[in-house]
Amino acid sequence: MDIFSKVSGYTAARDAMAAGIYPYFLPLTGNEGTTVTLGDRELVMCGSNNYLGLTADPRVKKAAAQAVEQFGTSCTGSRFLNGNLALHDRLEAELADFYGKPAAAVISTGYQANLGTISALAGRGDVVFADRDAHASVVDGCRLSGAKLRRFRHNDATALDRAMATVPDGTGKLVVVDGVYSMEGDLCALPELVEVCERRGARLIVDDAHGLGVLDQGRGTCSYFGLTDRVDLITVTFSKSLASLGGAVVGDDDVIHYLKHHARSLIFSASATPASAASALAALRILREEPWRAERAQQNAEYMRAGLAQRGISPGESATPVIPLRTRGTVETLLLWRELVDAGVYTNPVLPPAASPRLRLSFMATHTTEHLDRVLDALGSRAEHFLADDEPDANDGYAVEALAELADAGVFARP
Amino acid sequence: MDIFSKVSGYTAARDAMAAGIYPYFLPLTGNEGTTVTLGDRELVMCGSNNYLGLTADPRVKKAAAQAVEQFGTSCTGSRFLNGNLALHDRLEAELADFYGKPAAAVISTGYQANLGTISALAGRGDVVFADRDAHASVVDGCRLSGAKLRRFRHNDATALDRAMATVPDGTGKLVVVDGVYSMEGDLCALPELVEVCERRGARLIVDDAHGLGVLDQGRGTCSYFGLTDRVDLITVTFSKSLASLGGAVVGDDDVIHYLKHHARSLIFSASATPASAASALAALRILREEPWRAERAQQNAEYMRAGLAQRGISPGESATPVIPLRTRGTVETLLLWRELVDAGVYTNPVLPPAASPRLRLSFMATHTTEHLDRVLDALGSRAEHFLADDEPDANDGYAVEALAELADAGVFARP
Repeated sequence: MDIFSKVSGYTAARDAMAAGIYPYFLPLTGNEGTTVTLGDRELVMCGSNNYLGLTADPRVKKAAAQAVEQFGTSCTGSRFLNGNLALHDRLEAELADFYGKPAAAVISTGYQANLGTISALAGRGDVVFADRDAHASVVDGCRLSGAKLRRFRHNDATALDRAMATVPDGTGKLVVVDGVYSMEGDLCALPELVEVCERRGARLIVDDAHGLGVLDQGRGTCSYFGLTDRVDLITVTFSKSLASLGGAVVGDDDVIHYLKHHARSLIFSASATPASAASALAALRILREEPWRAERAQQNAEYMRAGLAQRGISPGESATPVIPLRTRGTVETLLLWRELVDAGVYTNPVLPPAASPRLRLSFMATHTTEHLDRVLDALGSRAEHFLADDEPDANDGYAVEALAELADAGVFARP
Repeated sequence: MDIFSKVSGYTAARDAMAAGIYPYFLPLTGNEGTTVTLGDRELVMCGSNNYLGLTADPRVKKAAAQAVEQFGTSCTGSRFLNGNLALHDRLEAELADFYGKPAAAVISTGYQANLGTISALAGRGDVVFADRDAHASVVDGCRLSGAKLRRFRHNDATALDRAMATVPDGTGKLVVVDGVYSMEGDLCALPELVEVCERRGARLIVDDAHGLGVLDQGRGTCSYFGLTDRVDLITVTFSKSLASLGGAVVGDDDVIHYLKHHARSLIFSASATPASAASALAALRILREEPWRAERAQQNAEYMRAGLAQRGISPGESATPVIPLRTRGTVETLLLWRELVDAGVYTNPVLPPAASPRLRLSFMATHTTEHLDRVLDALGSRAEHFLADDEPDANDGYAVEALAELADAGVFARP
């Protein structure tokens, strides 16, 4: 069998392109943070993880430009062998201090932070328990580890406890959850999860990609619950509140030391560029100095949730700047997405199996009330045609495959 | 069992630190490309993949700084959902054109380019055949795919052919090799490998991380052999000749289109920063306009190989700017590495199982004859104490574990 045979059967995305409702890889020509330029139009950006609006902050930009000037555009090698700057070490030290943990390891991307951390610590014979809604990088890290992967019902500590009870005594157990879930904006049930992990002798990793910079004046999910000391490792990404690209794992000194010598995604990948390390560090310092940013991001989300409720639209389980709007199905998701683009609002359409169909909206500290009202107005007049009254069943097709429905639905002429 | 129990038993790196011969994560405070600052000293950098010296090129730095100014420090999202700039699309188009292939997909890191490409195309029931010396990211991509991984003897097309003969008819077959091997500097046996793949109905991926910018006026390994049309996919990284961070996969339009909708490391990871996309694009353009750079890198390597031979030192199988110097063992590798640092030369110590013990040297287009002579002088006077007469047996311990030998060898007092 030709291993490429799967390629020719894949037509859904091209069908959607032909229909003018293809929502991915949109080529932006400008990005001011809260607004972006698509073609000749300016849209309010409600589909970014730039929660604190720091990618366009003059201080962060200046730090990046200075790092380029001083250290060049790349370290052209892994931190392990030749690509480590004192700047990377400094970022590690300030991240660890920020989280109140002894040490941190900076890795090239957030995806690779989860991959390297999980696969270095778990292996054949171990069992990794991951929340069913945990990020793809968590799942890929588990797969790469060779450990057995058991996924438990979202946020259900009782289900986790039951799953652990079925594992033979003496099995190594690792639990991995998101701090804030990116598709729903809800928080992990950390107190209950910590209790189960401690009772069962399991180690716990919290991926705080969407909690850092947002919860508890920006200190993240573990600090919000007052449980930092009882979480073994926290993984983070720089490509959200920290206005950069990269990731890190934070924890006890001996574990971080071990990871720096065994995490393959750290050892065998080039380091974060000088610009990325410098911008993450600058953003981290601003985040600490200006806690109003985290609060404003949450206030803006609260304003949106209230505004949606006034218009009869449910914000789901959202407790953060991520707000999911459940749609009636794939077709409705894409049609609403397209109408919102036409109305000047950028959102993220999410299709199964990533999650049940929805538009994912996310808000920033730097969105103005004018931005937010524009989004509410655009949504309010369209909600009844596209949004679900209650949660639809998820289905199992691959996200973009679902676009094929559009051809059958005869909607191609519409946009 | 506590899944962290492995952590406390890992002491080798700390022992080496205490001994002053710990060679990893050196915190550089300056990087001019050919020279770097470590502590208060300037070293000639012979351990970087910055083959064309473009990380410090004013044009590349300017492109990065302008991108920061125009687009900010991060796209804070994946290209799929919200992090795609027209700049990323432009880079894809120019990479494809450069390689003479129809299409390319830009992914956040070179590591993730291999991971996403291999794991999207191969799956359970398929077999991936990888050269035994292929890069770690190739191995991790295979593991992640769920396909069966068969590693064949380095550069041995006959061994590949035999391995394929044992696979049941109808099995999907993918072969993955490096174009240039990073630990030896030798080229893949592409003509023989292509013949086997075509005869057996297997698809072929060449990871050209170390060939791009170096071979055939920079056009890479496949072009060097005149076999670009017969290689299905080429993966590249931006963190070597292209003076940036990121990666790409280049190939036929339908395969790239499929990958852009199925490669999880692309879809679920934030995009290359504006600065990284811009610097890779600027470096690619310079590489094409200034073919003397690729030639100079090769001339410098040739100068070094000749100079080493004059001093009775074998450059191994090197046919590129990567030159391996085989050492007598782990202890000798680290002692020679340390003596060279003291003599003002930065090299990469490589220990089993990454490869048999050696110092890995790599050279740039921008190294001057003065730099090169300084390296030759430093090596020449020390070679007889540390370098191997013939290739030692590889052993199976993890690289840094081998440092434990140092304690036993009583060398800790020496540096």
